[in-house]
Amino acid sequence: MIRPDQTLPDWLRRRAATMPERIALIAGDTRWTFADLDQQVEHLARQLMALGIQPGDRVAVLLQNSPVFVTLVHTMPRCRAVLVPLNTRLTPNELAWQLDDVSPRLVIHDQSNAGVADQLHQQQPDYFFYHTDALHDVAASDQALDYTIALNELHTIIYTSGTTGKPKGAMLTYGNHWWSATASMLNLGLHDDDRWLAVLPLFHIGGLSILLRSVIYGIPVVLHEAFDAAPVNRSLEEHQITIISVVSTMLQRMLDQQLCATKLRWVLLGGGPVPRLLLEACNKRGIPVAQTYGMTETASQVATLAPHDALRKSGSAGQPLLPLKVQIDIEGEPAAARQVGEILVRGPMVTPGYFNRPTATAAALQDGWLHTGDLGYLDSDGYLYVVDRRDDIIISGGENVYPAEIEEVLLAFPAVAEAGVIGIPDEQWGQVPIACVVLCSGAELDEAAIIAFCHERLARYKIPHTIQAVAALPRTAAGKLRRGVLRTQTLDE
Amino acid sequence: MIRPDQTLPDWLRRRAATMPERIALIAGDTRWTFADLDQQVEHLARQLMALGIQPGDRVAVLLQNSPVFVTLVHTMPRCRAVLVPLNTRLTPNELAWQLDDVSPRLVIHDQSNAGVADQLHQQQPDYFFYHTDALHDVAASDQALDYTIALNELHTIIYTSGTTGKPKGAMLTYGNHWWSATASMLNLGLHDDDRWLAVLPLFHIGGLSILLRSVIYGIPVVLHEAFDAAPVNRSLEEHQITIISVVSTMLQRMLDQQLCATKLRWVLLGGGPVPRLLLEACNKRGIPVAQTYGMTETASQVATLAPHDALRKSGSAGQPLLPLKVQIDIEGEPAAARQVGEILVRGPMVTPGYFNRPTATAAALQDGWLHTGDLGYLDSDGYLYVVDRRDDIIISGGENVYPAEIEEVLLAFPAVAEAGVIGIPDEQWGQVPIACVVLCSGAELDEAAIIAFCHERLARYKIPHTIQAVAALPRTAAGKLRRGVLRTQTLDE
Repeated sequence: MIRPDQTLPDWLRRRAATMPERIALIAGDTRWTFADLDQQVEHLARQLMALGIQPGDRVAVLLQNSPVFVTLVHTMPRCRAVLVPLNTRLTPNELAWQLDDVSPRLVIHDQSNAGVADQLHQQQPDYFFYHTDALHDVAASDQALDYTIALNELHTIIYTSGTTGKPKGAMLTYGNHWWSATASMLNLGLHDDDRWLAVLPLFHIGGLSILLRSVIYGIPVVLHEAFDAAPVNRSLEEHQITIISVVSTMLQRMLDQQLCATKLRWVLLGGGPVPRLLLEACNKRGIPVAQTYGMTETASQVATLAPHDALRKSGSAGQPLLPLKVQIDIEGEPAAARQVGEILVRGPMVTPGYFNRPTATAAALQDGWLHTGDLGYLDSDGYLYVVDRRDDIIISGGENVYPAEIEEVLLAFPAVAEAGVIGIPDEQWGQVPIACVVLCSGAELDEAAIIAFCHERLARYKIPHTIQAVAALPRTAAGKLRRGVLRTQTLDE
Repeated sequence: MIRPDQTLPDWLRRRAATMPERIALIAGDTRWTFADLDQQVEHLARQLMALGIQPGDRVAVLLQNSPVFVTLVHTMPRCRAVLVPLNTRLTPNELAWQLDDVSPRLVIHDQSNAGVADQLHQQQPDYFFYHTDALHDVAASDQALDYTIALNELHTIIYTSGTTGKPKGAMLTYGNHWWSATASMLNLGLHDDDRWLAVLPLFHIGGLSILLRSVIYGIPVVLHEAFDAAPVNRSLEEHQITIISVVSTMLQRMLDQQLCATKLRWVLLGGGPVPRLLLEACNKRGIPVAQTYGMTETASQVATLAPHDALRKSGSAGQPLLPLKVQIDIEGEPAAARQVGEILVRGPMVTPGYFNRPTATAAALQDGWLHTGDLGYLDSDGYLYVVDRRDDIIISGGENVYPAEIEEVLLAFPAVAEAGVIGIPDEQWGQVPIACVVLCSGAELDEAAIIAFCHERLARYKIPHTIQAVAALPRTAAGKLRRGVLRTQTLDE
């Protein structure tokens, strides 16, 4: 039998043909139609070709949310390059590690990240760093561009951290993004007047996926550079927004600022557990909140809870999206309803693996199933409940914080012999990390010095809020840190 | 790199889990929720297993539109059988030929096709014929069923009657149907209250595809056994229908019966050229008509014209759906804008080929492109115009004459209700066009007036040499004019 055709026309190019005059992007004073965006992309693609970009090359970006970020996302298919969106909150050390891992042909940064880019450039003089302003002067190539999208090719590599401490580059294909977009549409519906507000960072899958949906659906994106409740609330009304993606802390602040948006069809709420009071407040005001569970490795949503189920199935992340299968695994066997085990996911949105990490890929993807490392259960109606995030992940203001990564830094501090990091509840951020350390014999705790040490090596949101000296850390017989026990001990105090 | 996962969960099973209480099917007195439909399907799948159905077996059906037809469509994945929906309007000889070609394990028929089934059974005693009533007595198997859908596997084989030669069984995979459903959704949108009225025969792709969309979208289908304008119009109001698929003759009769449906979002109009008067009447009454061009081999729509373009781009089939590429081919080279050539289509909705027909498959699918045999052009905005079926071309004095173009003019003449144009041999010019028309009730044939009307609108060589009034024109079940039959009828006289 003939293999099914796995190529599509360039999404943006097609939108520019079918709806040239329709608004594609609103960002500050920028107002681009799909024809405008297509033109921007066409020019930038030709510039990247002129800079020597070849098919398969990685283009790393260190950018705030901005029109040039949007342009870059859609430029990838035309020069068959792979986008590596870097987290702008990371320290130069963290970024340097990711750059070495992904070896990009280019690193594009904006003015607000110029300082970090300079430091990186000094450390890694072999990489080409380009300020977005300098791009203006690059002459466009007249080489032929590609207007075909092969679903199996990579569009993005996004770094996610894990148990080992070092981040891994999750690869996402065009097919992953396409399936995610259509699966989300099957769940949320698609209206002629839909407009999606993007305020999450575009370097995370939650923000990035909005841009891909915009051209796949043919709907406008209203982009905010950063989150600020009052302007976001105003934007909802002014631009007649129908869908917005946020995390709990944002939604809480929007409520505090008298959120009232008559056109909103969906508030997609990701990034960890949601306080019940927040849900009740939204319910009372008729705000259609849909809690979601997703991750980079699945190109965003795995399951979404419809607003009408929000209180009835409180605490649930909803039912898996149609093209995905979710299974709860207990030691290799599918769990019964309500039995807690590891959440496994399979389907066409699942990453093909981690960039240059065959061992990590083989560990994460077994027989087609993604082992998320998250714990949860399915109730008898098939609703997913996420009990604990993978490997003691701490979710702080929507950012994933991995204890192991922080512990590794703490262990590098001379006076620290052992370190354990846990998340504690925080009103503002949901959770924040704190650290318990065992000091080398004779050493004294200098909390300020340790925190300063962390600041050089870790993004701000990863810095432990307190450092406590303890006599010993709870460990398994094999010597593995028991963070659950540590959390209980610490919280009980 | 790991190959993308090409399996999905059983669509209906998932809908029964996510929306068990939602209405899936309304047909006469039948009113099934998705849970009901799932139960029906589960039972029938077990019965088919008990009858010895194995993965890959063909199950032919000779059925009117009915709930059991719907059930059978969704039963296929659970026993991994392939549905062969037979055209109930064919003669026993035509059907016998198709059965021999596809060698089904079972032929399921209903009471209204019992006579034909009996004749077929006498001719082909080796096949198992099952009356739907007899199915009631079949005990269900307790074998394990399959709740996974492999996108590359076949769901359907549908015979298409090319204008020349014997019909061929176009194979359609689950992937073809899925991509068609999501592509259509990207174009038409998806609302929470959508309801699709199915009145086209389910044995054609135009009807069948509605059933697959229903479970993929999670929306109800309102099924009519056969077309009758007054009940269809009533149904639109009673069931708050938002989408309906029809052909021109149906829509005309619905208009004659005071069609007025406030909830209609889309009237999908397939099956060939549409009289301009009909479009104008719909436009005047605010009926959102979307002309489409599609075929069995592409699992339905290739291009669809949005209602707001209906008059501006009159005669066009619209722009290709997002995942498809359309190219106009002239002797192996892509045509320029407005140049007429063969319409080629590629994309994930395109059939993997014809059942047991490697030669026909290789001829139709070249380098991934489906050669439709249809003639058309793209205008400079990328709108597709279908000029004619290649096999119907009339060559007169070296000039190409396209019957559809002449028919469109004839249809604009007030007294003409339907028109069919064919070529007849002519000593002087090789071929000349002649026309057969169905007059509006009460009208009389005024040949001179019609010819004069044509002279105003068409080049001399395109003017029909004679105009004959006929009682009816031969059409396929989908309403498509059968010019080959018309030619035979006319020349035999």
